[in-house]
Amino acid sequence: MISVSIIGSGNVATHLFKAFTKTKSVTVKQWFSRDISKISSYKNDVDVIDDFSKLTEADIYIIAVSDDAIPEVSEALPFENRLVVHTSGSVSLYKLDKKNRRGVFYPLQTFSKEAKVDFKTIPLCIETIGKKDYPLLKSLAEALGSSSHKINGDQRKALHLAAVFVNNFSNQMYRIAHEITEMEGVEFDILKPLILETAKKVQDLSPYMAQTGPAKRNDNKTIKRHLKQLESEEHKTIYSLLTESIKKTHGTSILRRSSEQASSVTKTIET
Amino acid sequence: MISVSIIGSGNVATHLFKAFTKTKSVTVKQWFSRDISKISSYKNDVDVIDDFSKLTEADIYIIAVSDDAIPEVSEALPFENRLVVHTSGSVSLYKLDKKNRRGVFYPLQTFSKEAKVDFKTIPLCIETIGKKDYPLLKSLAEALGSSSHKINGDQRKALHLAAVFVNNFSNQMYRIAHEITEMEGVEFDILKPLILETAKKVQDLSPYMAQTGPAKRNDNKTIKRHLKQLESEEHKTIYSLLTESIKKTHGTSILRRSSEQASSVTKTIET
Repeated sequence: MISVSIIGSGNVATHLFKAFTKTKSVTVKQWFSRDISKISSYKNDVDVIDDFSKLTEADIYIIAVSDDAIPEVSEALPFENRLVVHTSGSVSLYKLDKKNRRGVFYPLQTFSKEAKVDFKTIPLCIETIGKKDYPLLKSLAEALGSSSHKINGDQRKALHLAAVFVNNFSNQMYRIAHEITEMEGVEFDILKPLILETAKKVQDLSPYMAQTGPAKRNDNKTIKRHLKQLESEEHKTIYSLLTESIKKTHGTSILRRSSEQASSVTKTIET
Repeated sequence: MISVSIIGSGNVATHLFKAFTKTKSVTVKQWFSRDISKISSYKNDVDVIDDFSKLTEADIYIIAVSDDAIPEVSEALPFENRLVVHTSGSVSLYKLDKKNRRGVFYPLQTFSKEAKVDFKTIPLCIETIGKKDYPLLKSLAEALGSSSHKINGDQRKALHLAAVFVNNFSNQMYRIAHEITEMEGVEFDILKPLILETAKKVQDLSPYMAQTGPAKRNDNKTIKRHLKQLESEEHKTIYSLLTESIKKTHGTSILRRSSEQASSVTKTIET
């Protein structure tokens, strides 16, 4: 049995608490929040506290608070040489106070308060300083049914940044599509299956292989018509920039094309 | 029983053929391709032809060829007053030769040759000139198990443009994420569940409501760090532009903020 204590009362803390209580191999000893009213509804399930000095022994202490508060909270812990982890994608492991053994237990997923979370589909990125602390965190991930990934700090930061692209920026593409369809009084719902299929496609194919559309096939007639059709200057700028980006990726931008043409000329001369 | 003849041998034509042959209420009478070798493997299942003059009577003729070829193909049809539709998202209905009754039967989905297609999940956008032709196309969509949507030409063009954002541009976000993770030698696979969850989230929530991340919460410290972290100038430009777009959408850009502050000042004065 792995015993954990959770510090923090936000989305990640709450989802972790709920998920741990459902496992057979993890027990949540204590749940700390500075504002105890936020977690007092769980007082029958766990020892809820708002005073660091009340923290008792546990195998792992999970600090799931806002990025800025991590150093301060880790300093406030009234013990030494125990395993303390944070759950942030972007905060260095070394921001944790060095009086304890340190690690990161970063679930790469988007958490909202309402939505149900299935940890079986959430990759857990694990980082530790001491090699011997890694297996325990791996077991903790496994207890949740999650896949676990041993990564270093730079890799975690790369994932956190990449997540902004696949999550926030893709979602903004959906938002712009919503604005475009709304302007013509057509239901955004019609696009939902395409949104899902686009995400499903890259589960098996690389994004490079999955790409289609006017930019990839260098269909400048359609691109021009789309640009004319867009009413918002902001949407036009985004359309142009991302079209250019796809063209660059797929070697259909003018630059690449002329070098391709040059090489085909060379070939013709050679034969 | 609805009888259709298909003209063209690309992805849409092939997927439609396969889907129709699986239904009980649609029969494919003939399949035309200029290059008969492309469809000759189906000759035991359907009358394959490469000569327009061989086209016999059918309830609906479906022209599923490249956008540019639609006018020419519709002119070449050796009959009049029959129902002829194309399947393009961006070509006007009026590009079909007016000697026949005209319509559009546009499946809004991304088609690739290999991937299996389930028409039950594909919305069919239908447009006709004659009101009386609409019910037959609606029945054709229903026979495939698809949802059908009556839309006009401008609405179809809006959907086609919006589809570039949700499909091509989102996919480019995945591609950039792939480049970022590869640079640090971390598996792109770790991001796949997040990609899927992002698409699933907007099946129930609006993209506006689904948004999270540093741009939405105006977390300029993280934004700055991300920009510093990005090595490619192109990625930096895209990051900045889309961050600004999200800030605008959610009223966290400097402009909106100052007007919000102004209105809160007004409120303070009023109370």
